Amino acid sequence: MIDLSARRFGFLCYPGFEELDLIGPWEMATMWHSYAKGPACVTVAAEAGPMRCAKGLEVVAAHGYADCPPLDYLLVPGGFAAFEVMKDPALIGFLQSRAATARAVLSVCTGSFILAAAGLLEGRRATSHWKGLPRLREISGVTVEEARWTQDGPIWTSGGVSAGMDLLLGFIAAEGGEDAASEVQWNAEYYPEGHTYGAAHRSAQAPAYLKAGA
Amino acid sequence: MIDLSARRFGFLCYPGFEELDLIGPWEMATMWHSYAKGPACVTVAAEAGPMRCAKGLEVVAAHGYADCPPLDYLLVPGGFAAFEVMKDPALIGFLQSRAATARAVLSVCTGSFILAAAGLLEGRRATSHWKGLPRLREISGVTVEEARWTQDGPIWTSGGVSAGMDLLLGFIAAEGGEDAASEVQWNAEYYPEGHTYGAAHRSAQAPAYLKAGA
Repeated sequence: MIDLSARRFGFLCYPGFEELDLIGPWEMATMWHSYAKGPACVTVAAEAGPMRCAKGLEVVAAHGYADCPPLDYLLVPGGFAAFEVMKDPALIGFLQSRAATARAVLSVCTGSFILAAAGLLEGRRATSHWKGLPRLREISGVTVEEARWTQDGPIWTSGGVSAGMDLLLGFIAAEGGEDAASEVQWNAEYYPEGHTYGAAHRSAQAPAYLKAGA
Repeated sequence: MIDLSARRFGFLCYPGFEELDLIGPWEMATMWHSYAKGPACVTVAAEAGPMRCAKGLEVVAAHGYADCPPLDYLLVPGGFAAFEVMKDPALIGFLQSRAATARAVLSVCTGSFILAAAGLLEGRRATSHWKGLPRLREISGVTVEEARWTQDGPIWTSGGVSAGMDLLLGFIAAEGGEDAASEVQWNAEYYPEGHTYGAAHRSAQAPAYLKAGA
């Protein structure tokens, strides 16, 4: 596995971000650091300190934009709040300035709308939560792919909420090698049951990857 | 789906708990509340306030033991710190007193050792992270089951870290009905890719459920 332990992976927090969007990938990335020479991981928000997530959990960001160390990778979570924070010039400015020097920028769920607002999806393939796909199609320059996750150059995006964990494993395999992804999966015991409950997933709104597998 | 919105689901926090152990189930349970009449969800720790998790994320508990409202369900996460906190009389006392009136107690990963220390696994089937299975076998009165998750009466346990999400969906289906689990899975877009990286999972230490599926 490739030694990336001198690199740094930032996780962007903002009030109302969806808990699992960020913390699923955080767990995979910190396992990568602990077990397979992955980058160090840090949280960053407008200012260091606590904030309330979409479902009421309170999380404390370690860094503010002003004191955030250099980042090699940056992940942007989603949630309904994404549609508000995509209008926040300070957040978009931070994202643009860090994206300019990062090796990769990743989003989960409606985090892709924040990437789009920062101009990072121009001419790129991308995805989002199934609820967001019609709106993502309205953004010119973006080619919507109904995949569990997408990569287009340095831009990686995923479907809703839990899809960020699959995204991270794919990202770790690409950056750190298959053995690194294997160690992370093993230590996180990420071998999901794969059981599908009820019929909600048979909705016409289901993304293509789900229709193909269901 | 069954209306359980008047009930309350507690998530036990302690310094060093593994992030995804708690926040994976938290996301599923709060989705249950938001979309399918599930119980309200609260975090509780020895005292309300911030604490550092296993991988460095800081999370704020909303309630202390003393001011925690009545709980119908209680989930206990794991992490290496579980082997320390299982010796904490205040935590064990809180768990025992709440378990006495709760409808169900759930654990993720090495959280099962905390349940055992509280006497809740006596005569029960249970599981843990694959790293914990040999040690769990040494506890008299516990029948170790190498499953993704287990239910034995009001006691539910899961394998490592990410297994808590599969546990919660099974729990939601049992308590709230299949349609409730279906709505949660749909809104969390929990249809994992199911891709297995590398060969780590072929280890002799792999639990039976993984060997059966690999």
